[in-house]
Amino acid sequence: MIRSIESKQNTRVKELRMTLSRPSTGSQAPIGLEGVHLIQEALRSGIRLATVFIANNSHRLLDDLNIPNDVEILSLPQTILNSSVSTESPQPVAALALRPSWNPSSLFSSGVLILVLDAVQDPGNLGTMLRSAEAFGATGVISLPGTVNIWNAKAMRASAGSVFRIPVLDLNPEDCFGLLRSAGIRTLAAMAHEAKPGSSIDLSAGAAFVIGSEGSGLKPEIADQCDARVTIPCPGPVESLNAAVAASVLLYEASRQRGLRGGVKA
Amino acid sequence: MIRSIESKQNTRVKELRMTLSRPSTGSQAPIGLEGVHLIQEALRSGIRLATVFIANNSHRLLDDLNIPNDVEILSLPQTILNSSVSTESPQPVAALALRPSWNPSSLFSSGVLILVLDAVQDPGNLGTMLRSAEAFGATGVISLPGTVNIWNAKAMRASAGSVFRIPVLDLNPEDCFGLLRSAGIRTLAAMAHEAKPGSSIDLSAGAAFVIGSEGSGLKPEIADQCDARVTIPCPGPVESLNAAVAASVLLYEASRQRGLRGGVKA
Repeated sequence: MIRSIESKQNTRVKELRMTLSRPSTGSQAPIGLEGVHLIQEALRSGIRLATVFIANNSHRLLDDLNIPNDVEILSLPQTILNSSVSTESPQPVAALALRPSWNPSSLFSSGVLILVLDAVQDPGNLGTMLRSAEAFGATGVISLPGTVNIWNAKAMRASAGSVFRIPVLDLNPEDCFGLLRSAGIRTLAAMAHEAKPGSSIDLSAGAAFVIGSEGSGLKPEIADQCDARVTIPCPGPVESLNAAVAASVLLYEASRQRGLRGGVKA
Repeated sequence: MIRSIESKQNTRVKELRMTLSRPSTGSQAPIGLEGVHLIQEALRSGIRLATVFIANNSHRLLDDLNIPNDVEILSLPQTILNSSVSTESPQPVAALALRPSWNPSSLFSSGVLILVLDAVQDPGNLGTMLRSAEAFGATGVISLPGTVNIWNAKAMRASAGSVFRIPVLDLNPEDCFGLLRSAGIRTLAAMAHEAKPGSSIDLSAGAAFVIGSEGSGLKPEIADQCDARVTIPCPGPVESLNAAVAASVLLYEASRQRGLRGGVKA
């Protein structure tokens, strides 16, 4: 059943607006999704929707979405929807959804390959990293303080849906390194200089790449806690690679080595 | 000598505004640069400046910039400068510069490695590709119709200065494939499926990777003109990689193979 809404002050509309403009860090807070494509990706990934917002003149879109029966559907004027969504070209459909909950064991499935993100601030880079992490078979991502919220609208779009499927844990550095150490996962600090090329390190055993911020690279106090330093040799005269490219190339290198060796070492 | 300007209607200010909002495709048109960092990168790369715009209260920045003596310097209120620049956090300095001019032989220095871009539309992706191209030793880039202008402000920022140094040619597909064929460069169409992994192709001889648009991939009529098809194996359940990541990983793979073999085959 579809319920009609006429006011910007409706509780759900306000919740959507708040969630899209600044996603909460609380583990129970809903996440906001904009547009058919992202909502389809969420449903395909087993994410549970709480509320769907549909513009009055766009009900036909519901046919494509296959919304489960228990989801609240609110119909509202496009103008009210526009006041809530974040994109430059507003979409006729949006949703509030429940975030997936992950625990450490989610990350330690067979063939551990983890991306640890320290103060990655650009939502586009973050989303691209999640997309590459899923593509290259990473088992999960750990987000350290200072990294942008993965439920940021731009990060979700850049992830092309991977944000719904790859396990992500928010941890402080102490818990992160404690967890990885106790699981026997080698931590590799990604550096622009003074480090070993990824292609000359055996990446077929469990590994975690630790990636720093776009502007200043990895903090020394984080790099010092890692077991080794890894780099991507660049013959050209550049200072560094884009952070999402660096993370993606390291993940590719691990995936390439694992493919060569006919799978992953335990 | 520094000249003062008080009007938004000043010819140079209008030229800056026009250039920054929509860079011309003409080969003689100036390019617009915003911010100290980009102007420093341009000067470091041998780009010639025509005019520098400096906010009245920021003249001290000129000390860092080392502007050559023959460059016109205009001082103006920050408010007038703000009306011309494109970034969300406006900078106290901007410049009009002469674009570098490249010819086909610029791309065919030893160890040819070329990126051909077909309808790459996202300026951030384009800039990131130029940055990775320079990093991994590409000798040049060919931009086919439908690809965003490399002098777009966002593309320049994402390139981190590489846009000033790597040769880029604007060509139509016919001239592009004619040129590469006559130079004996193998063209490899980057595809998400039904193609050979880059790591199983010998990339140490001259090669050109042809990259398609973010949304729809490479057009069939462009892919059909290529000598072979190349892909990046992704064990994870994603449809595709980000276009800039795909281009960067292919360039990395070529660079890795060339490093292994102690340099490039002629």
